[in-house]
Amino acid sequence: MATPKQEAARRFSTSESSHRKRKMSTVYESGSGFGPGLTTLYLGMSAVKADAHTVVIALAIHDATYLLDFSVEHINLDDATDHRHDLVAERIIKQVEAYEHENFVKFIGAGISPELEKVSGTLCSRLWLELDVVPLVLNPDSDSGHFWEQKSVDEQADSMARKCIMYFGPSSVPLLHVGYRGIVQTDGAFKAKLLELYNFRSTCQKPTWDAMHHYAKDLRTRKIKIAFFSSTPQGGGVALMRHALVRFARLLGLDLTWYVPKPRPGVFRITKNIHNILQGVADPDQRISEEEKATIVDWIDENANRYWLSEGGPLRPPEEGGADVVMIDDPQMPALIPLIKKLTPDRPVLYRSHIQIRNDLTAIDGSPQRDVWLYLWNNIKLADMFISHPIPSFVPHDVPSEKVVYFPATTDWLDGLNKPLNRWDTGYYGHIYNMQCHSQRMTELEWPARKYIAQVARFDPAKGIPTVIDGYAEFRRLCEEDGIENPPQLCVCGNGSVDDPDGTIIYDETMKQLETKYPHLLEDVSVMRLDPNDQLLNTIIANAHVILQLSTREGFEVKVSEALHAGVPVIATRAGGIPLQVKENVNGFLVDPGDWKAVAGHLKNLCTDSELHAKMAYEARTGVSDEVGTVGNALGWFYLAAKWAGSASKNHFDGNERWVNDLAREEAGQPYTEGENRLPRSFTQKKPAE
Amino acid sequence: MATPKQEAARRFSTSESSHRKRKMSTVYESGSGFGPGLTTLYLGMSAVKADAHTVVIALAIHDATYLLDFSVEHINLDDATDHRHDLVAERIIKQVEAYEHENFVKFIGAGISPELEKVSGTLCSRLWLELDVVPLVLNPDSDSGHFWEQKSVDEQADSMARKCIMYFGPSSVPLLHVGYRGIVQTDGAFKAKLLELYNFRSTCQKPTWDAMHHYAKDLRTRKIKIAFFSSTPQGGGVALMRHALVRFARLLGLDLTWYVPKPRPGVFRITKNIHNILQGVADPDQRISEEEKATIVDWIDENANRYWLSEGGPLRPPEEGGADVVMIDDPQMPALIPLIKKLTPDRPVLYRSHIQIRNDLTAIDGSPQRDVWLYLWNNIKLADMFISHPIPSFVPHDVPSEKVVYFPATTDWLDGLNKPLNRWDTGYYGHIYNMQCHSQRMTELEWPARKYIAQVARFDPAKGIPTVIDGYAEFRRLCEEDGIENPPQLCVCGNGSVDDPDGTIIYDETMKQLETKYPHLLEDVSVMRLDPNDQLLNTIIANAHVILQLSTREGFEVKVSEALHAGVPVIATRAGGIPLQVKENVNGFLVDPGDWKAVAGHLKNLCTDSELHAKMAYEARTGVSDEVGTVGNALGWFYLAAKWAGSASKNHFDGNERWVNDLAREEAGQPYTEGENRLPRSFTQKKPAE
Repeated sequence: MATPKQEAARRFSTSESSHRKRKMSTVYESGSGFGPGLTTLYLGMSAVKADAHTVVIALAIHDATYLLDFSVEHINLDDATDHRHDLVAERIIKQVEAYEHENFVKFIGAGISPELEKVSGTLCSRLWLELDVVPLVLNPDSDSGHFWEQKSVDEQADSMARKCIMYFGPSSVPLLHVGYRGIVQTDGAFKAKLLELYNFRSTCQKPTWDAMHHYAKDLRTRKIKIAFFSSTPQGGGVALMRHALVRFARLLGLDLTWYVPKPRPGVFRITKNIHNILQGVADPDQRISEEEKATIVDWIDENANRYWLSEGGPLRPPEEGGADVVMIDDPQMPALIPLIKKLTPDRPVLYRSHIQIRNDLTAIDGSPQRDVWLYLWNNIKLADMFISHPIPSFVPHDVPSEKVVYFPATTDWLDGLNKPLNRWDTGYYGHIYNMQCHSQRMTELEWPARKYIAQVARFDPAKGIPTVIDGYAEFRRLCEEDGIENPPQLCVCGNGSVDDPDGTIIYDETMKQLETKYPHLLEDVSVMRLDPNDQLLNTIIANAHVILQLSTREGFEVKVSEALHAGVPVIATRAGGIPLQVKENVNGFLVDPGDWKAVAGHLKNLCTDSELHAKMAYEARTGVSDEVGTVGNALGWFYLAAKWAGSASKNHFDGNERWVNDLAREEAGQPYTEGENRLPRSFTQKKPAE
Repeated sequence: MATPKQEAARRFSTSESSHRKRKMSTVYESGSGFGPGLTTLYLGMSAVKADAHTVVIALAIHDATYLLDFSVEHINLDDATDHRHDLVAERIIKQVEAYEHENFVKFIGAGISPELEKVSGTLCSRLWLELDVVPLVLNPDSDSGHFWEQKSVDEQADSMARKCIMYFGPSSVPLLHVGYRGIVQTDGAFKAKLLELYNFRSTCQKPTWDAMHHYAKDLRTRKIKIAFFSSTPQGGGVALMRHALVRFARLLGLDLTWYVPKPRPGVFRITKNIHNILQGVADPDQRISEEEKATIVDWIDENANRYWLSEGGPLRPPEEGGADVVMIDDPQMPALIPLIKKLTPDRPVLYRSHIQIRNDLTAIDGSPQRDVWLYLWNNIKLADMFISHPIPSFVPHDVPSEKVVYFPATTDWLDGLNKPLNRWDTGYYGHIYNMQCHSQRMTELEWPARKYIAQVARFDPAKGIPTVIDGYAEFRRLCEEDGIENPPQLCVCGNGSVDDPDGTIIYDETMKQLETKYPHLLEDVSVMRLDPNDQLLNTIIANAHVILQLSTREGFEVKVSEALHAGVPVIATRAGGIPLQVKENVNGFLVDPGDWKAVAGHLKNLCTDSELHAKMAYEARTGVSDEVGTVGNALGWFYLAAKWAGSASKNHFDGNERWVNDLAREEAGQPYTEGENRLPRSFTQKKPAE
């Protein structure tokens, strides 16, 4: 127990410069920018029970180097209004928020002692959802653990803060941990307790939730082991979905593990070329040599033999502790399938295809697409199922329809990309955006004084950025014609990712288009390639007046649903999976790729008709299907795992181009009902003529 | 051995946006700012021998998340011009620098495989000294280590980059590691190989170097164990000196270890009050209660008993593996002395006093100073020596003169604070300074288009900041009077440290002084509290036209020597140890505290008489004594350790207020010679009258 003299109550003693406060408050209150620049700090927190009624809470405040301040507060648990009232969380949230506002601070992470987590069941998720602080529940390390109970509560808090900082890399997000055998340890080696199960409950409708639980319970009861394999642990939509799925499955107590191979720099370019060829965006002469194909197989074989097929590995037979069901993501990984099927022919292996394969080109004998596809198909055909985005043209004709099911890409409503951010944090991230602009001598956004229109997408030839620029310029011409004052700015931004070698070319073309065709708009257009930062993109999307997605060619592009979910009307093209997500003329407008005139017209309507905007924003916020969120995604995967694991159903489950969510809901006795948000099935229905 | 197909030569493939290049080059070449904003990245490097003549080097480039690019180069070692020619280092440095300039990048750290370090003996220190990259030599971890030799060289480089990133915290410097028993593991748990012994050789004169080696050899031969104890592992001058000393001693193979206690948040305020009282800057009524004194003793006792007096600890008797000589730093730690002397009365314990004790006040019976001092002295008097800054008034009268020796504070010429930074890195850090200004709506520096004058010091009441402002304003008045065009800006900056609770008050007073008395100068004065960043302060000091240090009361303040060493003339006050460091009217000017008129006059001369400035800058660069650098510091400590360790000299070594460096040089047979840079001894000479 802590020594009593260390437990004397203490308030924070730091006070910020009144000069700085004055300057910062001006920024904040005048609306002359997203918000002031905030000092980024870290927290440590611990709790000890003083007696049966009282818990003593200490908070320590650190920068990356020093302890700056600390507080000790005695909380009488009898003051709680009822047994569900988490008084401890409430007091801590209040203290932390007050400190942020008084001292112009943004807390990035908090180290929380196991004792405190026990005392306050809602603290972690409230820190994440209300204050955008990453809560890490950390074990005292072996050294200090020996004496942990003897430490006073303020020492414990200090120790938690120090340990917390070790989890954050230079980019101020918890460093990704990939453990032994390539297990992806999401959320800072599973230390970050961002969310509780009940938080997810609020992100979907009851039938989805109940159906998901139906299969989760079955999997738990039968102790089914599920293993996912994909090529990269972060970056891009696949990784995003898997992080969310692992997080969610862990809360449900399921045995679901995600594996990635050890990276090999040399294969990266080859797999990127495979992607580009299948999507029809590579140079027409581009082919994959036999040696390159062999390199990929060698890389996968090596990983499989070292980590996954060796004793105790997930690809050992189920009776030796291996997985019961295996899911293969990505065209990098199919070489695993023959290895698995050779060892365990009866174990189900499901292949998930994430890319928009040009099935018209894969059908042409001798084409580079056919060549690459046959190389993949040679392995994929051994899998039991081919899971595709719900766009039939993405499925090569070689795939027998009984193996095909449709399953959309999804996003997570409670991660950094989509969770609601309060005004304080919005200011913090918006300021980061503008500082990056300033640093690169790029136009800054003047929100909230001015509105802005945004397209958030990679700088990729297929994203239709020229149409964005032309559409905006035409819109500005219309504004001028009609004397519309203070028209919105334009923001074109996206991550400059490693998946995106064309990024610099497209960025330069965009700037050239602006400088040569529309120099008068340069001061109103902000074009930025950004470092990965979920909350920054979230901020840009959530505060935009209109979101554009004017791709000329597209996969599923769940960013459209993200914008709608944030309550922002969209103008998007009829390309790939986009039209599935937009209720045309209800929560957004659809245009043909390249139709900048139509874009300008819709922009003008959305910027001048506030009633129309409000109505569409409402429909956007309330019109997104459960199918594109994590619970919907989990429902599908849990269903597939439950269905395939166990011999009864094996070899008897045909997909027949049905939607996974339909199958899952029906078999759980929770079929879709009239009026429920659902992606339009008509998209994948066979035409009667066929 | 790596598989040959992975060793094909490969150049970097990334290319930066030409639009960004154009914008950034403009910033860089027009001289309209320190430099462009650079993208911060990390490196991984490895080497394999292809045959007896050829080594294959791979470099991997990462941001905090992804592999961005990599190269593989075959180097024929026979191309080296002679056996000392480190061809590998040369090629790597060239590649890295070219990548930085082509892509507007700043590399922060590099993970280097042990194989590469073996192949290239100068690579690490060249990365640190020439490109300001922190080189971390990292062992493959146990998991990948198992297969390390089977990895191709590019995979190894990739792995090194990933591991390297884990060592960097949110502040982009390697996280400090404090190990078991509170051992301070400097330089990222000793992984960062910043410097080699020969780098230090160039920072001092030969007699200092030879004398230092004399004692180092003795200590090594006799296997003397030296233990330092101080209260905090980072922040402030004491920590800076100890980091450098540990780094240097390790290169010499000495058994010198630095210990710190586990932090306890509650004691921090008490020890800060003790500091303030002894320095006479606390509220006159401020006292330390008996309970507070007991708290500190309890904290030290607890740490001693747990970590240092327990089996295997450094305070066990020497014959049980404990230290042979113990050095106690800081007024936080004296409570250790009676514990040590009780266990081992004959083991030498030296007390190092770092603060400017007001010995006039400690002499007054009943004063708070006397009260605190007696509390400390009660322990310190058991030590064998009292090592003070060379300012007699800092030594309380109770200390018998035979125990007193003088020893200045020191700095390190090759760490981030002082090493030469090239133009690229200067631009990078200067840009960070200006971005912080922009973020806080503070005046930015226009260097190199305009010169600036700077005072770099904490926002502390004794730093004479009002005199800085008044002196600059008067200087500007003189400029106007004489029609001097484009006068320099003023920069007042310092770390906002935890040691510095008055910082916000002084900062506000400074801004108020400017806003009320000199509003016309606001656009030309930049006042900033900064996050700790050695190279940033280095940049500000090294590029200033004049450095001010106008303290009203001072300790030793080695920053004065840092400015001189950087070749910047100083204007400083006759306070504390400052006058010891300045050769008056040769490399700087001395003024009385508060004499802003004199400051203005000297500023005018240094800004209008370029010959005077050039002469003083030369004298500054060449006039700094070895005594204030790491080698001089090591010389003193090694001498003291060698002298005290071993029974022969024990109890027979009296300090008698002599300078440690004089004793050390004389006994090594390397006495000071006429004309050698040396701090003036006259300062501490007894006046004949005494």
